[in-house]
Amino acid sequence: MRWKKISDAVVRRLPLYLRVLDDLAHKEKVKLISSQELGELAGVSPALVRKDLAWFGEFGKQGVGYELEYLRHELRRILNLDVNHRVALIGVGSLGGALTRYNIRRYRENPDFNLHIVALFDSDAELIGSEVEDVQIQPLDVLEQTVEDMGIEMAIITVPASDAQTVAQRLVNAGVKAILNFAPITLHVPDDVQVASADLTLELQRLAYYLVEE
Amino acid sequence: MRWKKISDAVVRRLPLYLRVLDDLAHKEKVKLISSQELGELAGVSPALVRKDLAWFGEFGKQGVGYELEYLRHELRRILNLDVNHRVALIGVGSLGGALTRYNIRRYRENPDFNLHIVALFDSDAELIGSEVEDVQIQPLDVLEQTVEDMGIEMAIITVPASDAQTVAQRLVNAGVKAILNFAPITLHVPDDVQVASADLTLELQRLAYYLVEE
Repeated sequence: MRWKKISDAVVRRLPLYLRVLDDLAHKEKVKLISSQELGELAGVSPALVRKDLAWFGEFGKQGVGYELEYLRHELRRILNLDVNHRVALIGVGSLGGALTRYNIRRYRENPDFNLHIVALFDSDAELIGSEVEDVQIQPLDVLEQTVEDMGIEMAIITVPASDAQTVAQRLVNAGVKAILNFAPITLHVPDDVQVASADLTLELQRLAYYLVEE
Repeated sequence: MRWKKISDAVVRRLPLYLRVLDDLAHKEKVKLISSQELGELAGVSPALVRKDLAWFGEFGKQGVGYELEYLRHELRRILNLDVNHRVALIGVGSLGGALTRYNIRRYRENPDFNLHIVALFDSDAELIGSEVEDVQIQPLDVLEQTVEDMGIEMAIITVPASDAQTVAQRLVNAGVKAILNFAPITLHVPDDVQVASADLTLELQRLAYYLVEE
């Protein structure tokens, strides 16, 4: 069962809640958590926490709070993180390399993380054949075939802006349904493909808006 | 003059519009752009483009569109990008190094970019004193003094999660008003400090939500 009509703003906060629950589960012997505490740790108002979670069912009891392990389990299920997802990364420059190392180390520490970069691609002949954290960099020629053979569902694009749309199109053709895009352009993809933009320049520019002289 | 009550969702789209206008200004001799075209290129509906821009004044004419250079100029002014902002980056690991190289090269190509990493900090004695793109890595001891001396307003945090809150607090104490946080924790800062989270794990987890078996 999926909840098709949930707004993106709600979905965006669910991983925040999960991060708080994961931290508490690792650090302390907490069994229950109130919407107040969860909200405070996630940087969200308690009312919004309750409203967001209510979309997916009744997870808590008034005056008692949420049972931590249960809520964590449910959030993972809702976010589709109870199954493993294979991820490809295209463009193994310095940013792509850093992201790969970070992801694979995190996955090794905790395979339940379930988001795993398993294939790397680049167009640079000097990079092809070399490895990052034991994953070999492959040429773009084999992109479609590898995505299909390995059952890759997600991709991270860290190629230059001029190549990003072409790469996205090839990923979509090969069956990728979710793309995290670091290239500074807006990707055009079919409606059934989800794109998240991680354009750091956009984030910095947005922050600049708030730099008001007092 | 500032527009204090504009929602964050609107502000978030302004850099997207600016990116489209910047691209067009560099590529072609376009003088006018309709909300239809701008929306299509930014991945936003034309009605929303018109609504977003109307918050800040009347930039276009019905049936004619927006004068590209004028709108671009106005968006830069609204986003506070008509003045230079100095940025510090804390945690010069592989991700921090990659972001620094990207930012400084971009700034060199186009100083009007106006967001410029001018100071780097790390706690690792082996890194201190070395340089990334001619910016020397300094010890954390001199963080507050450097931020004040150099008039740094923004910071990028790429330290491990366990250090991020302490670093954020020190930045805030030194006068930093905007933080782009890559550490996988929610930072707690005063209301007058703006934080953008660039936790890539959160983005990947959010995308997983949309990976539905058809």
